[in-house]
Amino acid sequence: MPPRRERGRSMKNLLRRDADSVIEAGIRAVLPDAAVVRALREFRPGRGRTLLVAVGKAGWRMAAAARNALSSIDGGIVITKYGHIERPLPGIECCEAGHPVPDENGFAATARALKLVRDLTKEDSVLFLLSGGGSALFEAPLIPERELQRITRQLLSCGADIVEINTVRKRLSGVKGGRFAHACAPARVYSIVLSDILGDPLEMIASGPCSPDSSTCAQALAIAEKYGLELSQQAQKLLHLETPKALGNVQASITGSVRELCAAAANRCRALGYEPILLTDRLCCEARAAGSMLAGMLQTHAEERRSLAFIAGGETVVRLTGQGLGGRNQELALAAAAGIAGLDGAAVFSVGSDGTDGPTDAAGGYVDGDTAAALAAKGIDPDRALAQNDAYHALDAVGGLIRTGPTGTNVNDVAVALLRR
Amino acid sequence: MPPRRERGRSMKNLLRRDADSVIEAGIRAVLPDAAVVRALREFRPGRGRTLLVAVGKAGWRMAAAARNALSSIDGGIVITKYGHIERPLPGIECCEAGHPVPDENGFAATARALKLVRDLTKEDSVLFLLSGGGSALFEAPLIPERELQRITRQLLSCGADIVEINTVRKRLSGVKGGRFAHACAPARVYSIVLSDILGDPLEMIASGPCSPDSSTCAQALAIAEKYGLELSQQAQKLLHLETPKALGNVQASITGSVRELCAAAANRCRALGYEPILLTDRLCCEARAAGSMLAGMLQTHAEERRSLAFIAGGETVVRLTGQGLGGRNQELALAAAAGIAGLDGAAVFSVGSDGTDGPTDAAGGYVDGDTAAALAAKGIDPDRALAQNDAYHALDAVGGLIRTGPTGTNVNDVAVALLRR
Repeated sequence: MPPRRERGRSMKNLLRRDADSVIEAGIRAVLPDAAVVRALREFRPGRGRTLLVAVGKAGWRMAAAARNALSSIDGGIVITKYGHIERPLPGIECCEAGHPVPDENGFAATARALKLVRDLTKEDSVLFLLSGGGSALFEAPLIPERELQRITRQLLSCGADIVEINTVRKRLSGVKGGRFAHACAPARVYSIVLSDILGDPLEMIASGPCSPDSSTCAQALAIAEKYGLELSQQAQKLLHLETPKALGNVQASITGSVRELCAAAANRCRALGYEPILLTDRLCCEARAAGSMLAGMLQTHAEERRSLAFIAGGETVVRLTGQGLGGRNQELALAAAAGIAGLDGAAVFSVGSDGTDGPTDAAGGYVDGDTAAALAAKGIDPDRALAQNDAYHALDAVGGLIRTGPTGTNVNDVAVALLRR
Repeated sequence: MPPRRERGRSMKNLLRRDADSVIEAGIRAVLPDAAVVRALREFRPGRGRTLLVAVGKAGWRMAAAARNALSSIDGGIVITKYGHIERPLPGIECCEAGHPVPDENGFAATARALKLVRDLTKEDSVLFLLSGGGSALFEAPLIPERELQRITRQLLSCGADIVEINTVRKRLSGVKGGRFAHACAPARVYSIVLSDILGDPLEMIASGPCSPDSSTCAQALAIAEKYGLELSQQAQKLLHLETPKALGNVQASITGSVRELCAAAANRCRALGYEPILLTDRLCCEARAAGSMLAGMLQTHAEERRSLAFIAGGETVVRLTGQGLGGRNQELALAAAAGIAGLDGAAVFSVGSDGTDGPTDAAGGYVDGDTAAALAAKGIDPDRALAQNDAYHALDAVGGLIRTGPTGTNVNDVAVALLRR
């Protein structure tokens, strides 16, 4: 048996390799390409034409993956953010538009998408690929854009919440709140959604162009009255026009969500010899608390003989108490360092699936049982670094940053606590 | 099958009954009496005399339980807080003393305890029963009390941390840092510790009268120099006197800890049909974050067919942001309400094992999938109640307070998230 120090070092390397492997597997599973290909296994095109409409920041990548995977596509359109088209796609119009502020290019492209799906038959299919950012990129205002902006500003200044704002705005749009799917009818719509919202609420992702809308005209009118909205006659009429409550022609598939990120991480953990325990895919508490809690779990189970991996996906929040550099994943990891100090075979790490964590070049942070001592040896107080929101420099000093580069996907974060026995 | 509303109501009642049952079982397992009786199963007295020394806030109850459980005790002493002796115990001297500020009664009683264990043989046994509060109640200062107070004040005012203060103080005491066990030698000491500190660090509980001390004279001297302590010649000499680093005559058993609280809660959950998952027994993050995280776990697993119970023991912290009434357990529960809103068969509750949570008459809080709606119906915004640290009134309005009355034990809290399928 090698001397203790040697064993310690090889365990340390092993843990870090396990972490990198889990991160790689997790992110790979939720790349738009992989996610679309997986979801397409359920897609059964009709006997007529198959059109593709891809909307959102991952629109081009999703469309390219679908183009590769399917034998025949009879036309289509991509509407994505400026700079997000990598190359032309044969037979598919690729458009770039404004995000987060919608612009004329987006309105024009959306109008062309509506034109594309007009006059389809029930033998035809629309493959609708949706990702984050779609709310701004995909819009066909039913009132002049200037009035829409004024109404939104008024709602915001009155303190209306996002649900109230969307309830009103869906009725002023020709594509939101299920209306795009309505426009495609009687063609079948197969909607593949790359989710970037915890819990995957379909009608909230890009305001749900192909999802039945649960909000009602009565609610919209009540909101207008509550905030004393100034509405043109046209807008008032629109608030009385109901959105689809059921869409018989739509089949939706959520893919590339944080749930799949967690599942892929769990699978890789199992392959590496850990017993994976999925805690949650809706983590939304403070980053520091999540790190502390994960560290406590490792301490609690330290005496057991089994190797464990606790997995928590979601998106923590950072409480701003300083002016330092960092991100929520780095804060979570650094906050766990004290709790696992001196614990052999223990590591906690957290990464953003988009490869960027806060305004830094890192995707997240990694700590193990030696991190607290390594920080102390460099004169770094982790509590102070956290209070200054400066996890980046603390982790950087001890090799605790995780760098993946931009990944091309964005399905929130995954945090993992490993205990290797 | 009963109509949905009826089913909902009986599920609601069932969940609350499950919660009450889990709380009852958890607390019962960590009552000093039960915990001492359990630990005594391992106690093998020698052929000589058996003496009992019970120290701390639970000292009388622990002694009474041991007195009942053991056939013969040849004498002993209890040192507990004023008002904590319920009645005399035959053959055992029962003393009350000052806490948290030590007083002459405590010093005198400690001196009598030291006298009691003097001149024992290796055939004799000392049953040492320790609980929280022992640090103040059990003290034999080796320097005049006035100087000890002055040194402590000086350390505190210089910003010394608790570990530094204890490193110095242990050397100025005749019983702390393992010295009481030393005084009992060559008799065997069987130490039963009712732990009130997360992670059960034996040498920290009441400054470890029967635990080997890991701090050193070199450290104590360095601390004295670091803070420029003013020390009498006698105190200076004492800092050079090492504490026991190993104690061959001591066998220690930790009982009635938060770990046992969690284990008992888990067992009861299993008996009720849940699959218990012990997350941690070292929960120490913010109460609201823990509540949010537990709620997320229930949402995450809501689609599964198995009944689950996530268990987290420890002691969360409350961030003061308002002037309301509440406690950490009530905040944790209320913070979970939004996250499980509308979720059938889900409940989150948290209780303090001492039966009191914050400055309230409640032991903790309970929420289920209907709580958010019930609060809304009463015009109560849970986020605002949390911001005002006013969980008590919010929970009280919807029947969400848990009341047990004082329990007679104190081993931190347990929080449980139930999912009944």
